[in-house]
Amino acid sequence: MKFILENTDQKSKARTGVVKTDHGDIQTPIFMPVGTAGSVKAVHQRELTYDIKAQIILGNTYHLYLRPGLDVLEKAGGLHKFNGWNKPILTDSGGYQVFSLAGTRKITEEGVLFKSHIDGSKHKFTPENVMDIQRSIGADIIMAFDECTPYPCEFGYARKSMEMTHRWLKRCIDQVDSTSGKYGYSQALFPIVQGSVYKDLRKQSAEFVASCGRDGNAIGGLSVGEPAEMMYEMTELVTDILPGDKPRYLMGVGTPANILECIALGVDMFDCVMPTRNARNGMLFTSEGFMNMRNEKWKDDFSPIDPNINSYVSSFYSRAYLRHLTVSKEILAAQIASVHNLSFYLWLVDEAREKIKAGEFAVWKDEMVKKVSRRL
Amino acid sequence: MKFILENTDQKSKARTGVVKTDHGDIQTPIFMPVGTAGSVKAVHQRELTYDIKAQIILGNTYHLYLRPGLDVLEKAGGLHKFNGWNKPILTDSGGYQVFSLAGTRKITEEGVLFKSHIDGSKHKFTPENVMDIQRSIGADIIMAFDECTPYPCEFGYARKSMEMTHRWLKRCIDQVDSTSGKYGYSQALFPIVQGSVYKDLRKQSAEFVASCGRDGNAIGGLSVGEPAEMMYEMTELVTDILPGDKPRYLMGVGTPANILECIALGVDMFDCVMPTRNARNGMLFTSEGFMNMRNEKWKDDFSPIDPNINSYVSSFYSRAYLRHLTVSKEILAAQIASVHNLSFYLWLVDEAREKIKAGEFAVWKDEMVKKVSRRL
Ligand SMILES: [Zn+2]
Ligand SMILES: [Zn+2]
Repeated sequence: MKFILENTDQKSKARTGVVKTDHGDIQTPIFMPVGTAGSVKAVHQRELTYDIKAQIILGNTYHLYLRPGLDVLEKAGGLHKFNGWNKPILTDSGGYQVFSLAGTRKITEEGVLFKSHIDGSKHKFTPENVMDIQRSIGADIIMAFDECTPYPCEFGYARKSMEMTHRWLKRCIDQVDSTSGKYGYSQALFPIVQGSVYKDLRKQSAEFVASCGRDGNAIGGLSVGEPAEMMYEMTELVTDILPGDKPRYLMGVGTPANILECIALGVDMFDCVMPTRNARNGMLFTSEGFMNMRNEKWKDDFSPIDPNINSYVSSFYSRAYLRHLTVSKEILAAQIASVHNLSFYLWLVDEAREKIKAGEFAVWKDEMVKKVSRRL
Repeated sequence: MKFILENTDQKSKARTGVVKTDHGDIQTPIFMPVGTAGSVKAVHQRELTYDIKAQIILGNTYHLYLRPGLDVLEKAGGLHKFNGWNKPILTDSGGYQVFSLAGTRKITEEGVLFKSHIDGSKHKFTPENVMDIQRSIGADIIMAFDECTPYPCEFGYARKSMEMTHRWLKRCIDQVDSTSGKYGYSQALFPIVQGSVYKDLRKQSAEFVASCGRDGNAIGGLSVGEPAEMMYEMTELVTDILPGDKPRYLMGVGTPANILECIALGVDMFDCVMPTRNARNGMLFTSEGFMNMRNEKWKDDFSPIDPNINSYVSSFYSRAYLRHLTVSKEILAAQIASVHNLSFYLWLVDEAREKIKAGEFAVWKDEMVKKVSRRL
């Protein structure tokens, strides 16, 4: 993996660049649709490519490890072959799901014992075996195994957790650097900055992560319930420390406004379940604001969902039709809304890139933040 | 609407033809995907056209009347405009749903009083207002309001019900012939043969329906639980009486084998929820037999779903991936299976047409019935 920094904005910390992987290039800033169990929910692979224009998708190590399991993924030749997505993939480390989804779990220095949320079976994740699992899945970018602290989190716990995450990081690095990819292409390990909402801890963690000198770096433990201003403060503190010649990935963020604000703070990569999860609940993001599709007001609005978005679903289907499908609980409602919301998110980062290149980012960003935060 | 009979098979009663409507031509024999509430479940309109190659879809009057309602459909300019499907549409009369879905209902000579299954609100369907409702929906082919008897059904009830269906038919015809389409194109009314599984009644009903001289005729009240042989016997008895120069529509049928056998008996049009409903339950129809996608045996079968079917999903996705999605209850599983099953059904009737034209239908049909009835 290689990162080429291309443009830097004069009025903010925003930048554009290219992440080069063995499965192709990623233009940054980028949003990465979440493909939890090897499928971006309600979206065909063809739609990801041609309608949404996704450049990279995420897979969740926890889910893929439990189902379909490593034996199937290895026989398939890795996740790319298994799900037919031939562009870049990033996998998280499973830590977040272990802490939020799995049953009774026990954290020790060695790792985490947990029970599957599917069948209650017992499993163990350690920094070493999570690296091996991500080798078997075969993503282009793999994540260090960390503990993602909740919000709020006591200072003492946040410090101890961060220190263990750092020790785990060293073990992840040792494991990755002493093994190689299973399918003939390379995999880059991104370490993760933790430290909850404590400036001292965030600074310390960012410096430690930066010192590891990996191909890219991630910021974790944010967008877990803290106020947006606090998230921005922590993000800026960290991006100021992380090296500028490496891509910065802010994990699990966020709303369209969050993404625009964090691009302005120097973040290059984002992922979030919001566009797809909200889609399944009838919440649409558009270039003019957000819409609750259950609302009576769309009942006879036969205009397209969002004519500004160059995606089949956004111009083909009307608001009235989507409202009808949503109220009627038709599967097609989730499909249309998911493809639209992701198309919008990819449109948004594409616009951001163009504005950064044209030197017009800061003004455009402030306008867009207002627009996308408005309820239609 | 016009029907042009093109080929008749020498060794069976199968035939090919073209139904011409103001929204385009339909090659027969044809299978019509069911779009209950204005959406073929889990299928994008684009997929219906380009992948499945559907020529006509169904809408359910009962569902569309309740949701989105006639005011919305009329404001949209009819169902074609509302859902964006510009090819032919057929609507049923709502009778079947009133009898199977709706709450407490009361049948009188005038019509049926029923309660909505959605909110319990009270409604009345009469032959006259069901014609008006279908005028507001705006399908190219509309169905007479009938009572679909269950199986088994006592002779006395079946006879009385059939007689009332005939009286209702006269009222439907009067209503349709004294009104006109609301959107500038014509709508053909198909009467429906009833009579349960009683030969005398079926004969009497087919003769009455034939005497009405409409543009096409339908056979109802079959595929409701009776043995397949009984369904074939009734179908043949009826197709022998219905005029050969009008299309014959066998309602609610059926499995791939049912469709092939009934094409051999002179049926031209079919509809059934089976390909989409079974898809959502993980049951796949293929050119080599049917598959339960939950089965362990597909776990590491990385071959395509059905390489004989010329549809994106059938060749792009592997059986192992679809099994994983099915077991993981991913929405994409329903999407892939629905598009595949419908593509298979449309492939099947297309093959049947080609075989009839080539004079090879009878032999091919017997082979295919064996293939499609086999569990893989
Ligand atoms: Zn998120
Ligand atoms: Zn059926």
